[in-house]
Parts: sequence; structure tokens; C-alpha cells
Amino acid sequence: MLKISEKTAAMPASAIRKLVPFSEAAEAAGTKVYHLNVGAPDIKSPDCAVNAIMDKCKSMHHLSYTNSAGLLELRKGLIEKYYNKVGIKLDLSEIIVEVAGSEAFACAMQIAADRGDEIIVVEPFYTNYNTFAFLNGITLKAVPTDIREGFKVPDISEFEKLLTPNTKAVLLCNPCNPSGKLFTKEEMLAIGAFCKKHDLFLISDEVYREFCYTDEPYFSAMNIPGCEQNVILVDSVSKRYNLCGARIGIIASHNKDVMAAAMKLAQSRLCPPVLGQYATIGALDTPDSYFAEVREEYIARRDCAIQALNAMPGVFTPCPMGAFYTVAELPIDDAEKFAKWLLTEFRIDNETVMVTPAKSFYRTPGVGANHVRIAYVLEVPKLQRAMQILAEALKVYPGRTN
Amino acid sequence: MLKISEKTAAMPASAIRKLVPFSEAAEAAGTKVYHLNVGAPDIKSPDCAVNAIMDKCKSMHHLSYTNSAGLLELRKGLIEKYYNKVGIKLDLSEIIVEVAGSEAFACAMQIAADRGDEIIVVEPFYTNYNTFAFLNGITLKAVPTDIREGFKVPDISEFEKLLTPNTKAVLLCNPCNPSGKLFTKEEMLAIGAFCKKHDLFLISDEVYREFCYTDEPYFSAMNIPGCEQNVILVDSVSKRYNLCGARIGIIASHNKDVMAAAMKLAQSRLCPPVLGQYATIGALDTPDSYFAEVREEYIARRDCAIQALNAMPGVFTPCPMGAFYTVAELPIDDAEKFAKWLLTEFRIDNETVMVTPAKSFYRTPGVGANHVRIAYVLEVPKLQRAMQILAEALKVYPGRTN
Repeated sequence: MLKISEKTAAMPASAIRKLVPFSEAAEAAGTKVYHLNVGAPDIKSPDCAVNAIMDKCKSMHHLSYTNSAGLLELRKGLIEKYYNKVGIKLDLSEIIVEVAGSEAFACAMQIAADRGDEIIVVEPFYTNYNTFAFLNGITLKAVPTDIREGFKVPDISEFEKLLTPNTKAVLLCNPCNPSGKLFTKEEMLAIGAFCKKHDLFLISDEVYREFCYTDEPYFSAMNIPGCEQNVILVDSVSKRYNLCGARIGIIASHNKDVMAAAMKLAQSRLCPPVLGQYATIGALDTPDSYFAEVREEYIARRDCAIQALNAMPGVFTPCPMGAFYTVAELPIDDAEKFAKWLLTEFRIDNETVMVTPAKSFYRTPGVGANHVRIAYVLEVPKLQRAMQILAEALKVYPGRTN
Repeated sequence: MLKISEKTAAMPASAIRKLVPFSEAAEAAGTKVYHLNVGAPDIKSPDCAVNAIMDKCKSMHHLSYTNSAGLLELRKGLIEKYYNKVGIKLDLSEIIVEVAGSEAFACAMQIAADRGDEIIVVEPFYTNYNTFAFLNGITLKAVPTDIREGFKVPDISEFEKLLTPNTKAVLLCNPCNPSGKLFTKEEMLAIGAFCKKHDLFLISDEVYREFCYTDEPYFSAMNIPGCEQNVILVDSVSKRYNLCGARIGIIASHNKDVMAAAMKLAQSRLCPPVLGQYATIGALDTPDSYFAEVREEYIARRDCAIQALNAMPGVFTPCPMGAFYTVAELPIDDAEKFAKWLLTEFRIDNETVMVTPAKSFYRTPGVGANHVRIAYVLEVPKLQRAMQILAEALKVYPGRTN
């Protein structure tokens, strides 16, 4: 009998996307849905990025391939105009342009671990890590954290407990999607020392680096002393410049073997999207004022969301110091049921909200079933309205637990 | 000890790219290199494609994600404006926009075969099939063909010989990169019947569909009667519209399980490049006259290359009826040595040529060592000059065999 591979048949479908048909049905029926479910920011892309595309188009003869590592102008620009500024020193052989952060971490995971190997992640974590681990036969082992302690990284002994001869890497997202947790310098140094001690790669997904709400400077894994050979940096321009659709990411490492492997993988898909490369070359000239404004906007949105959430009886969320997400514990039986109920049954003046059930961000059994991820990617007035709807919904949800 | 995965360490480096440092060194030293080595056409992209990008940019607020399957406007446009015209009937659930042909065939191979499974390919074949097979633990088994017979598809008994319980698919590229071979309708029907009989998927890479030089209409695998559930179409806009850098490909199938798996894979990388999607939406309005002109141009180039090659003593190449490549047998010891020698030692008036050694396009031991792939992607006068240089080089090459 003709049948598809066991691997792709068994591959988990995106838990986040499972609800999309219900939101589409609601919208098709005329309901206004406030989308708190996707990290798709609504902030304007920098003019310099858009102008760069148009300028290139004006003089374009044909849209040809570029070097598999990306245009030289882009790689140089990233090093000189961006990484230098944020205190990450790279040379040309240490950076490859990828098809967004997705390709970057898929490559990093494959470079760090073989089939049957294990990678330690800090819970909660971005679900697609799980997808790529599955596709490559890698097992994720999760370090548990506590929402009530703001997802603080636990003592390194919790990492040690997960070590086996097959452990090959630690993978973290800082600031974290979905929790908004910003790793402290101390936490990063401790994880770095652990990786160094046990010869593990440290895959550091820093795509939200520009979204930090403390006064301390961001501390990149690339700057952990003595960890130069261990760290693989995963980066993306999607969130930084509001260019999610450009599909431009970066993999970087001081480890020559890592970069040689990344280059072989890069060559197999010929080159990253060229129009997105043009947009990024332009985006590198984004003025600092842009980031300052965006940061201020997100702080206002965060404060609005966090305050509103914690004012709802039975709801708890920590105050995230990075990214534009928070994970909230709700007084409900099951976040998947609740999210579906919001889309299919609950309306106030024909409006409702869409949230992401957070269970798939955890691996520890039983954890996260009543957690949701809220992406605060709406303007404050809209966010206020969405929070109001959520508060009313919680009052009447049949599966409420207290 | 910290070390990268065995998989990525053992992954073969691109045989085609191995010579790049030598061509770069030659060019850096002021030598003019005629590039017959890469299928990177120099034909202008259609104005409507470039204008569509600029129009979208003018009114763009921010570059957001699209549906993982691609913009609805693009999928509808592909079905109505393109596939309909070329006689391939598809509905919206049967098509997903991919990150170029590369992602499309990587997905198709993973959907068709698990680790340890086998896929039958017709020799010579595109080397990156090998790369993705390697990464996914799939073994390619090659049906041999004969350059002297124009790479005619042999009797189906040659396919039967390769069958094992682990055979899951036949993978072909029509017209073929690297040989330029255009599969006849009879050959396609025979291969289709074989796949149907043995419950195999037929992965048909048709990215060069627009480059056919016979008067008969192109016969797509999608139109093999009775094979609707078996066929997975791999397609790309890279060559068709000279938009290689757009990185837009397509996977299509009438098989629901295939498309469901393709959708899960698509969601894991969020969405295809959005600017490239805009370019493609515009490209769908390319007038027929564009393709007629391009076709005429390639026929002139092909005739120039084939005539010149076969006029060189000891050289043989068949006349390819599709794509913009040909494989030529040269009177030399080893094509890799020869290609390197051209770049490092041979010059006429400080000019030389770069060709692709064809050995990596074959799996049958001993075959192809004295074959090169020639991409006739230069204008006729340049191509003539390149052929002249190649002819002179063959006269004096120290490893000449007759």
C-alpha cells in the first residue's frame, strides 16, 4: 500500500496552528478576533529597509543566486554595523546568513547532535525546537522552572541531573519565547560553565535580543569567557526590524568545525532569500531612535497586559523582562479547551480573543495545562479591550476551577 | 571532547562548490573566467515581477508572516494563471509554496521515505538529491543510462532490478539537470506504471518545464493516468522567470496524506520568503512572448555549445532537448583534475573557462569520471569564446587520453 513515511506521519502538528481553523471560522462569521496568539508584531518596518528593496529593484537586471553564506555586503554589514555595536565580535568566516531563525536553529541542532543524542532545554521553550528535534531523532530533556518564581533558571544541579553520555548541547532562547524570561549574566555564566565542563554546545537563540526591558546591558552567550568553542549563536532579523516575512536569520560561531558544517548545509539549499537580504542591508542603517521607540511601545504594552492579567481573580503571570510574550496561569481546567471555547462560543459585542495554550512549550508531564502564552503585540487600546474580554470570559468559562 | 555531529561531519561537501576557491583566485588575479559551471541564467527577470515588488513596497507597513502555505493570492494565481495553462489541474489544498525547489524536494523525499528506505533515481541526477538523502538516512539507487544513447530511459526491467522491500519512490528531474534529457511521454507512462504497480511515490522535479526544445507539448507526471496518488510535484519559479534569488518553490500533489505532511513541515519553518512571493505574484502575468524569446535564445545557445563541443576531437555530447545543460564526455583522465587545471594553469589571453565535473551526478562506480556538465547560460558570442578556449585547452591538457 502506498503510504507516507512514518516520520512525517508521526510528526506533531503545530499546537499553535491547530486553533487557526476556529479563528478563521469566527472571522468568516464576522466576529472580531484579538490575536494574542502569534508573535507577529504590528510595528512599522524601518523605512531604510523598504527603500533598500526598492532601490535594488530599480536597477535590477535579474534576481540571481548569491553566495550560500549570503551577500558579502550583508555579512560585512551585520558584523560592522550590528554585532560590533552590541559587543559581539565576529569575523567573516564566523557568520552565515540563513533562511530565518528557523533554519538557523534547525542547522545548529543538527550540527550539535546526532540521531539518538539529547539536548537540554530550559522550560518553557519554543515548540519548534521540539519539531526539529523530532525530525532529526534528537531528544529534548527539559530543565523545569517555576512560573511563580518568574521562570528563574534553577541551580545547575538540575542540569546535571539530566546529563547522560548522549547529552550534546544546551539550547536556550534569551529573551525567551514563550515566557519573556531574560537570562541574567550570572545564569548565562553558570550555564556556560556547565557546557564547558561537560563539552556541550550551547545553542543560544537570541532573536529577541533587542527587546530587553532592564537597564543592564544584554549579555550574549557569545561573550561567556572560555566558551568560545561551545557557543552557536542563532539570530534573526524578523523581530528586530519587524521584517518577519524577509526570512533572514544568522548562524554564528567561533568554532571552525561548526561553521564548516553550517556551510555544507547552507550550500545544499543554494542561497538565502535575496530580496530579504537586500531589505536587511538597508535595515542595518536603522537609527537608534527606532529601537528606543519600539522598546517604549512594548514596555507600555507589557505593563498594560501584565497589570490587567494579574488583576483578574485567580490569574498569575510574572513580569517579563524581555521579548513580547508572557505566560499566564489561568484558573481553568485546560487551556486548549479554553482557547477553543473562546473562538467558538464566547463573544462580547461579537468580539473575542485568541490565546496560545502553553502545554506544548513544556515537557515535564502535567505542567502547563492551565497556562497560556499571551503575545502583547497589539496597540494599548486594543490590548486593553482584549484583556477586558479575557477577564469576562474567565468569569463565565464552564471549566473554571476556582 | 567537544565535537560536531557525525552526520554533519560526514556530510559530503558540494562537489560543484569545491572548485570555487580556484575560480575566485583566478578572478582575483585578473583572469576572465567564463562560467559554464552554474545554472545561473543571465536573462532579465520579467518587468511585471520586479514592478510587483516595488508596488508592494510602496504601500508596505511592515513585512509580516504569511500563511505557512504561502499567500492565498499566490496559490490561487499559480493554479489559475500558471498550472491551468500548462494543463495541470490543482485545487487550493493540493499546493504549498516552498522555500525554492530545494525545500520542495527535501520535503518530498522525507514524505516518501523513512530512514533506511531507498529511492530510485535516473542517472545522471542533481547532486543535492544525494545531500538530502544523506541527511535523512535515505539511500539513492541509480538506474544507469548511456550518454551515447542520449540518456534514454532504459527498459523498466532496469528499475525492477533495483527494487527491494525498502524502495519507496522514484525521483526524476524532467527536463533533467544535469543532462538536459527531456523524458518522453512513453517514458513517463512506463515509469508511472512501475510506481503504480509497486506502490511507490513518483517525485517529479519539473523546475525546467518551461525549457523544452521539441514541438511536442511537455508531459507532466501530474498527468499520468491512474498515478494521481503517487505523484509529488516539485517545482520552482527560479529558472522559469529568472528569479533564482526569490527562493520560491512549490510542492503539489493530489494525495491528501502527502499534503498534510507537507503542511506540517511548512509550519515548522513558519512561512516562505514574502518578498519572493510578491515577485512571483507579479511574474504570473509574464507575457507568452517572454517565454518564446527565452526559448529561442536558449536554442541558439544550445546549438552553439553542442556544435562546438562535438567538433572538438574526442568529445561527445548528445543534443539536449530541455533545460540549459548538457553532459559531455571528454578525452581526459579525470574531469575534476581537468576543471582545476583550467582554473589554475590554463589561460588564453588571460581567459579561461569553468566547467562542472559530472562524477557526483552518478552513483554507478566508474561512470562519469571523464564527463563534465556544461551550463549554456552565456550569450552566444561569449559562449563561442568559451568553447574556443575549451577546445584549445583540450589540445594541450597533460591528462589527455587520446
